Amino acid sequence: MWTLEQSGFDPATAKAFEGLFTQGWSWVHVRGSYEQGVPGEEQDAAYERRAANVTSEKFRERVSKWGCYVPGVFGPHPTLNAEMVNLPWPLEFRVVVDGVELEPGGRSEAGSADHDLRRLDLRTGVLRREVQWCVGGRQVELVFERFVSCVREGLIAQRVKMKASERCGVELVAGIDAQVRTNGHDHFESVQFGARGAWITCDVRTDGEDLVRTACALRHDGEGTQVELDARRGAWRAVVEAGPKEARAEKITFVRRGEAPPPSPRDVPAFDELLREQGEAMQREWDCCDVEIEGDEGSQLAMRAALYHLIRAHPRRSAVAIDAKGYAGEAYWGRFFWDTEAYLLPFYMHTRPDLARQLCAFRVHTLEGARANARRYGYAGARYAWESDHRGIECCPNWQYADHEVHVTADVVHGFEHYGRATGDEAFLKGEAREVVLETARYWLGRVSRRAGDGRVHLLGVMGPDEYTPISSNNSYTNRMVARALALAARLADDAGERERFGAVARGLWLPRAGDLVLQCEEWPLLGEPEFERSWPDRGRTYAAQVSQERLYRSKCLKQADVLMLMAMLPHEFSDAEVAAAWREYVPYTTHDSSLSPGAHALVALRLGRQEEAWDFWLRGQGLDLDVSHGGAAEGVHIAACGAMWQMAVYGFAGVKSALETEVLTIGPRLPARWKAMRFPLCWRGSRVRVEIEGGRVRVEHEDGPGLEVNVGGQRRRLRAGASEEWSGR
Amino acid sequence: MWTLEQSGFDPATAKAFEGLFTQGWSWVHVRGSYEQGVPGEEQDAAYERRAANVTSEKFRERVSKWGCYVPGVFGPHPTLNAEMVNLPWPLEFRVVVDGVELEPGGRSEAGSADHDLRRLDLRTGVLRREVQWCVGGRQVELVFERFVSCVREGLIAQRVKMKASERCGVELVAGIDAQVRTNGHDHFESVQFGARGAWITCDVRTDGEDLVRTACALRHDGEGTQVELDARRGAWRAVVEAGPKEARAEKITFVRRGEAPPPSPRDVPAFDELLREQGEAMQREWDCCDVEIEGDEGSQLAMRAALYHLIRAHPRRSAVAIDAKGYAGEAYWGRFFWDTEAYLLPFYMHTRPDLARQLCAFRVHTLEGARANARRYGYAGARYAWESDHRGIECCPNWQYADHEVHVTADVVHGFEHYGRATGDEAFLKGEAREVVLETARYWLGRVSRRAGDGRVHLLGVMGPDEYTPISSNNSYTNRMVARALALAARLADDAGERERFGAVARGLWLPRAGDLVLQCEEWPLLGEPEFERSWPDRGRTYAAQVSQERLYRSKCLKQADVLMLMAMLPHEFSDAEVAAAWREYVPYTTHDSSLSPGAHALVALRLGRQEEAWDFWLRGQGLDLDVSHGGAAEGVHIAACGAMWQMAVYGFAGVKSALETEVLTIGPRLPARWKAMRFPLCWRGSRVRVEIEGGRVRVEHEDGPGLEVNVGGQRRRLRAGASEEWSGR
Repeated sequence: MWTLEQSGFDPATAKAFEGLFTQGWSWVHVRGSYEQGVPGEEQDAAYERRAANVTSEKFRERVSKWGCYVPGVFGPHPTLNAEMVNLPWPLEFRVVVDGVELEPGGRSEAGSADHDLRRLDLRTGVLRREVQWCVGGRQVELVFERFVSCVREGLIAQRVKMKASERCGVELVAGIDAQVRTNGHDHFESVQFGARGAWITCDVRTDGEDLVRTACALRHDGEGTQVELDARRGAWRAVVEAGPKEARAEKITFVRRGEAPPPSPRDVPAFDELLREQGEAMQREWDCCDVEIEGDEGSQLAMRAALYHLIRAHPRRSAVAIDAKGYAGEAYWGRFFWDTEAYLLPFYMHTRPDLARQLCAFRVHTLEGARANARRYGYAGARYAWESDHRGIECCPNWQYADHEVHVTADVVHGFEHYGRATGDEAFLKGEAREVVLETARYWLGRVSRRAGDGRVHLLGVMGPDEYTPISSNNSYTNRMVARALALAARLADDAGERERFGAVARGLWLPRAGDLVLQCEEWPLLGEPEFERSWPDRGRTYAAQVSQERLYRSKCLKQADVLMLMAMLPHEFSDAEVAAAWREYVPYTTHDSSLSPGAHALVALRLGRQEEAWDFWLRGQGLDLDVSHGGAAEGVHIAACGAMWQMAVYGFAGVKSALETEVLTIGPRLPARWKAMRFPLCWRGSRVRVEIEGGRVRVEHEDGPGLEVNVGGQRRRLRAGASEEWSGR
Repeated sequence: MWTLEQSGFDPATAKAFEGLFTQGWSWVHVRGSYEQGVPGEEQDAAYERRAANVTSEKFRERVSKWGCYVPGVFGPHPTLNAEMVNLPWPLEFRVVVDGVELEPGGRSEAGSADHDLRRLDLRTGVLRREVQWCVGGRQVELVFERFVSCVREGLIAQRVKMKASERCGVELVAGIDAQVRTNGHDHFESVQFGARGAWITCDVRTDGEDLVRTACALRHDGEGTQVELDARRGAWRAVVEAGPKEARAEKITFVRRGEAPPPSPRDVPAFDELLREQGEAMQREWDCCDVEIEGDEGSQLAMRAALYHLIRAHPRRSAVAIDAKGYAGEAYWGRFFWDTEAYLLPFYMHTRPDLARQLCAFRVHTLEGARANARRYGYAGARYAWESDHRGIECCPNWQYADHEVHVTADVVHGFEHYGRATGDEAFLKGEAREVVLETARYWLGRVSRRAGDGRVHLLGVMGPDEYTPISSNNSYTNRMVARALALAARLADDAGERERFGAVARGLWLPRAGDLVLQCEEWPLLGEPEFERSWPDRGRTYAAQVSQERLYRSKCLKQADVLMLMAMLPHEFSDAEVAAAWREYVPYTTHDSSLSPGAHALVALRLGRQEEAWDFWLRGQGLDLDVSHGGAAEGVHIAACGAMWQMAVYGFAGVKSALETEVLTIGPRLPARWKAMRFPLCWRGSRVRVEIEGGRVRVEHEDGPGLEVNVGGQRRRLRAGASEEWSGR
């Protein structure tokens, strides 16, 4: 189960496949749009996207949306602040036979395709389109293949293989199209096309003062190649003879920042060689993270789709992080959220600790931005942005989130701590990360309040992860995360006065409770009943899209887990009775309008032994990107939910305990009934193991690193590198 | 004390005088800008005003801002919704001597003015500028006069009188300048200048599909007149001989909606005749409302300045109401707020009941808009807009106000009830207004909530008049006003089921309390301490301009009276102990960032016998428009605060009880020590009386209408028309 498939062309699902089929590596990501444009789908329509409640925002209805993104290339938007820039579309590869151009789905007036199939091979990252096209009385078979190289920085390789029932000339047009916009806005200060030797180059200077050079070359066995250049587009045009014997053409494209010229085409190997090295490199990636699931093909494919995007979307450097849509769309403007720490870090820290460290280092690099945010709000220290650009500057145009969703600043520190515990990289916390921990702690000192008459410390005017309660007092999630961050700061601070102040505030912060029930916030009992029966007629769409925002904001409806999220992240801090009380209270009110919701719920459900409900959340998580009929990844991949899928599988069904809870690798499987077996690698405090769960049996193989203790079902055993152990039955 | 004065020209205060000197009548209002433009102050700079927290919005720093407004002419704004359109500037009247143009302040390279004085005569509405100008070695005396006729619809009369120490030609340029914008936005779809006979016409078609025609003519004794026309400007140019004998020129301008041609210039009387009829008409206006204050010239002038704008700003028809800046600026986009009912209606209902009825009728006319608002939020019935355009459509671009400040819908009904009680016009309530009362009641039925476990009715997700608590539960002001509106609806409803439902909700709504203290809302105890000492260094500027919005929103700082406002509007519903408790609790937290704040506070202070504090609030109210060094009326007149000045004087110092409290005209003076006497007319349930308070003595003269009972100091007497009574001593 390694293949995602799109059969035929349906305008209703096309955009979802474009997002789902996004390919990329490091500095360049391209959406899975066809090499041929969809007729009528202009990509440079000017419009102004507006700030909106994110859950109820309606996106423009379009059949096709190109996207080419270079992480870190941001430009200013007139009302929405900095956004990631959509760059010139580099994948154009058109085919014309007898004056008829092949279209997506293959249909046009003169030609029609009986067979049009696209397949994304998750294992290699190759997207392949097969078309059988009847044009001018001939049968033409075309196979397009493409991938973004994970070996050669910025390289995109494309190939078309052609056969025809009788000999004919196939006209190829392979170019770069700069007639694009970002959310309707034009970020290009200048666009310069040119042809130099084998390359057509397109230099774009953005309004964020980046220079991005795209260069493409066409290699084929056909007639001499012509150049077509105009102000916003450039392409090679050539005619290749097709017939019963297969003809081929290759397009090589580089997308890179800066003015470095592309290499000599001779230094770029042929497609087959590029493909071979791609396969090998991708295999190494999969070896680090693949989660094998036996007995349930749907789960296996969904798991791998999530892992594919997690492998792809990491920029492989610390100058940027992974944006909320995994460089596969513009829905969240390419910005960085708390998703990084809460949903993505666990996956990377347990599969590729080096990549996890880069995500943490991004927060260190953007400390100056966080300081600027704090200053702008009138505070000392550092305040991380709810929606961060590459500099760490707050870009969220909606004040309710920007002003109140302060938990991100504590989440950053939580991420550091979790990373340190999971990887054993204590040096990071005491070294690079230390200043972030102290500076954010200084911000909290100014941000907390006291009330006359009680000795407590309060955090007021806060929005928790549940964004349907916009302003609240003593949000439990936030208070607990802040208290933990301050406790860590107290341990790291040199200054005795600061140690004392951080510690005192950490101790003074509290959780509102009613018996066993941890309250989301002090206002929880004041909120109204949401009356879902009456006000949420269409459960296939979000609740937020069907009610007024004021109804959302004044009632107990929850966008996502909030107290449950806290319990999922810090399970050891709460008793079973507390978790059960929270489940009873909050689940009936939770809309799961957020894609971040199912993951946390599944973890808590499993803790409570609610296996069936956990399964339902797992299925819900699967559908987020794969359910193309409900939008899926149309506006980008739900990359945090991909991380949550891994958490559901490994923390959830395999029952691996959080590194915050225990230093001993602890496994307590509770596989879904239909899963026969589950196998995955895991990094744990500097060691690498492979875990296999099958029947009642758990097998752990130690591959590399220092010896470690493993606890399965209460039985602890010690393993050295090269050794393996098996626990059976229960 | 009838004259406001500006001596010399100071760029720092110029814009404040422009607002303060606004003239107008009915369909046309013009800001008090000089007839000559301020050099360098272009009026057509393009920029995008953004939605902002209204108290912390920074306006563009400018020396001069023209404004010409026709009530009801609105155009769409790309991000801010409909706004009142700033129309072509009709007052241009330039003077050139020896090639040197007279400027505001008179200074230019070649000429200088030793004396430059502007005076607005509140009694007649005439603005007069006297200049002594030394130019080319000559002494030139110029007197400009202008007014907007309150007799002839849309007519603006201007005159210049000229004398020179030796004979010289004075070049006059009198035109219409359409090089203007509204908040940086161009609302003119087309501008057409033309010259027909004596008139230069300027036809503007706005993007709101209004046609406004401005036409001007120049009358003088000088040389033949030339026409200058270009795309966005048109002017008459003429040379008049000046010398020791006074020369004169008159400019007549009409600003009108629609295509009707201006009258023949012969049918427009000469300036002196226009001035005479103006004086007479204005005298009739003053007779209805003047509040004479003896012994305190500052108070007298401030009172009359407020009354002048109240006389001026009423559009004299019910198709529109009075916008928040009294047609004297663009700060609130020309929109209609609850100010109408809470601050303006009491003045009009007790001085000009016919004009009060028009304000009420505006709400009746815009019921369709209110229904549309309710539908948009998913409710039945009618929901009045927080920021209403002429159609009643919600235009507020900030969701926190638009979504939550629902009290306006109850305030509208409160206004009707108050109007009915004060004027005795019961027919209005039972007739025209009835559907509004019922439709808004139907909205409330859907808007209230219930909570499990109590029998109460709750109003959640609400912002009260205190806009620094953006979302709260059971705001006392709102709950009480809504309960009253529903109780009225229950009395007016025909349907027994509706009567019962309205009544049940009215009875179920409650006020949160802690002992004698009426809580602003249930969340009040949860809010933090504002720490004014640390966070409000400059008390000369608003608190909101000096702290982050989140600090504002999470602490007990109040923008304006909220519980105190309720007690000021419905004094008889609260005991002295409750009022005293509220005063103690809320006053220390109140920033008075709102211009609506001092009025309500003064009334409550007087009730509590806090005479000195009341006096301070009175002074604060005086300064709102008159204190030009702190901005004053730069962005428009605080017209609601003008209404509050009248309430402070009449309800407050004269101690006239609200018509909601008693049907008997009840007077209990508590004049400031320095006020020797106070005299004012008053309409009371169909009768008109004159009240004179002097020393301990109260004299009431019945001028017109049915007999009425008057209660002074507990002594009731009955008066018939023509009779007067005096109560002395106490």
